[in-house]
Amino acid sequence: MDDPVLLTGAGGHVGRTVYERLADDYDWRLMYHTQPTEEPEAPYFTGDVQETEDVRPAMADAGTVIHLAGDPRRDAPWRSVLTNNIDGTHTVYELAVECGVERVVFASSNHAVGAFETDERTPEMYRADDEFRLDGTELPRPGNKYGISKATGETMGRYYHDEHGIDVCNIRIGNLNEDHPPIDYERGQAMWLSPRDCAHIHDCALRADYDYEIVYGISDNDRKYYSLERAKDVLGYEPRDNSAEWDGAERISNDL
Amino acid sequence: MDDPVLLTGAGGHVGRTVYERLADDYDWRLMYHTQPTEEPEAPYFTGDVQETEDVRPAMADAGTVIHLAGDPRRDAPWRSVLTNNIDGTHTVYELAVECGVERVVFASSNHAVGAFETDERTPEMYRADDEFRLDGTELPRPGNKYGISKATGETMGRYYHDEHGIDVCNIRIGNLNEDHPPIDYERGQAMWLSPRDCAHIHDCALRADYDYEIVYGISDNDRKYYSLERAKDVLGYEPRDNSAEWDGAERISNDL
Repeated sequence: MDDPVLLTGAGGHVGRTVYERLADDYDWRLMYHTQPTEEPEAPYFTGDVQETEDVRPAMADAGTVIHLAGDPRRDAPWRSVLTNNIDGTHTVYELAVECGVERVVFASSNHAVGAFETDERTPEMYRADDEFRLDGTELPRPGNKYGISKATGETMGRYYHDEHGIDVCNIRIGNLNEDHPPIDYERGQAMWLSPRDCAHIHDCALRADYDYEIVYGISDNDRKYYSLERAKDVLGYEPRDNSAEWDGAERISNDL
Repeated sequence: MDDPVLLTGAGGHVGRTVYERLADDYDWRLMYHTQPTEEPEAPYFTGDVQETEDVRPAMADAGTVIHLAGDPRRDAPWRSVLTNNIDGTHTVYELAVECGVERVVFASSNHAVGAFETDERTPEMYRADDEFRLDGTELPRPGNKYGISKATGETMGRYYHDEHGIDVCNIRIGNLNEDHPPIDYERGQAMWLSPRDCAHIHDCALRADYDYEIVYGISDNDRKYYSLERAKDVLGYEPRDNSAEWDGAERISNDL
């Protein structure tokens, strides 16, 4: 883990959360879509993630990549997710092979399985006494085109793992909400990922020993309908937060 | 089933096999990539499957689509499968919604799961006494970029089924070999799909009652490592051929 770690999508919500909390723990390379407003301390690069020539210099000396870049909008149009997310992830994996990267941690999403939330299951499935669980072995059921692009990224990772031996961990990230869990939003409380749990699960994915994984990235919420077993067993993930325990006053994100 | 059936990729190997054997059974609309050398009897169209304006007139009055169009090469480069296969399938599904199509039968492929054929499992898994089976509930493991594009098409179909209520049947087509099973090629014998079984499984997928399915499209080969249970149970598929029964003389494809 001495090789530099490239973080794509460093300017996004997850990227900032990961970098801010793990800044001193790794030798980072940061890739932004546009020039960051504040100059980061780590070496950084800007460009389009689907453009090989933009990504290559950022990945040149990296041993691991956390790939978060892409259009993050749940209602992103097809053309954008086709280019930024699907083609972008292909560019990242192709360069990972070229650059000898040994591991890719991929930001997948709850939206890759959003259509499991059927009218018949909701809102009951968002509640603490409901026992419905997804565990990462299920086939994807995207709830939108963004979700299609994330499921495709997972499948692509499977190919690069099988064909090129790259370790791949796909984290189906829930709802990263700063400061406090979503309020008056059962679904959001079910899949809340606190900032410190977000940084922690990415830290785990950088350190643990695995081949190809699909795990859910949420806090240990009473309301959860995603199993955390795989993340705990394989990554050693130990979530500290639970949306049910937020008392309406404490600002969890500041509690490092 | 009185509405016209659009067949995309009508000029390809599977397309010709399906159309030739079922020509009289449906009111076909045929879509070719390039002008067919022989004028077909059914109304036909030419164009690029990813181009909305090319596909729209072909789909205008269709109630069902058999979507076979795409780059069929197992070693097709990423740029081609991204455009022809992934973006092309999106165009087909978007127009299916626009045109009120009720059912899409999608030509998926054995290559969507080709990487299950690991060094540890082969060649034993290709043999009649081996009990390894894939049944369509497993997560994809593409063996090439073509396979990534086919797995993506399956996931896309899941979205259009869940979101728009379109019946979707993904057929993971094996090795359609004319005249006889592959010779001196165990893998090909394991996944042989005879021409008459090929036409029959597509006929079944047009007539059966289902929501969203992933089935394997091969003949009932002794060597198979794909389960045919789902195709038999849901589609009523009754394969007639078996690569083990070919005696080296009979030309099975002519035995209608």
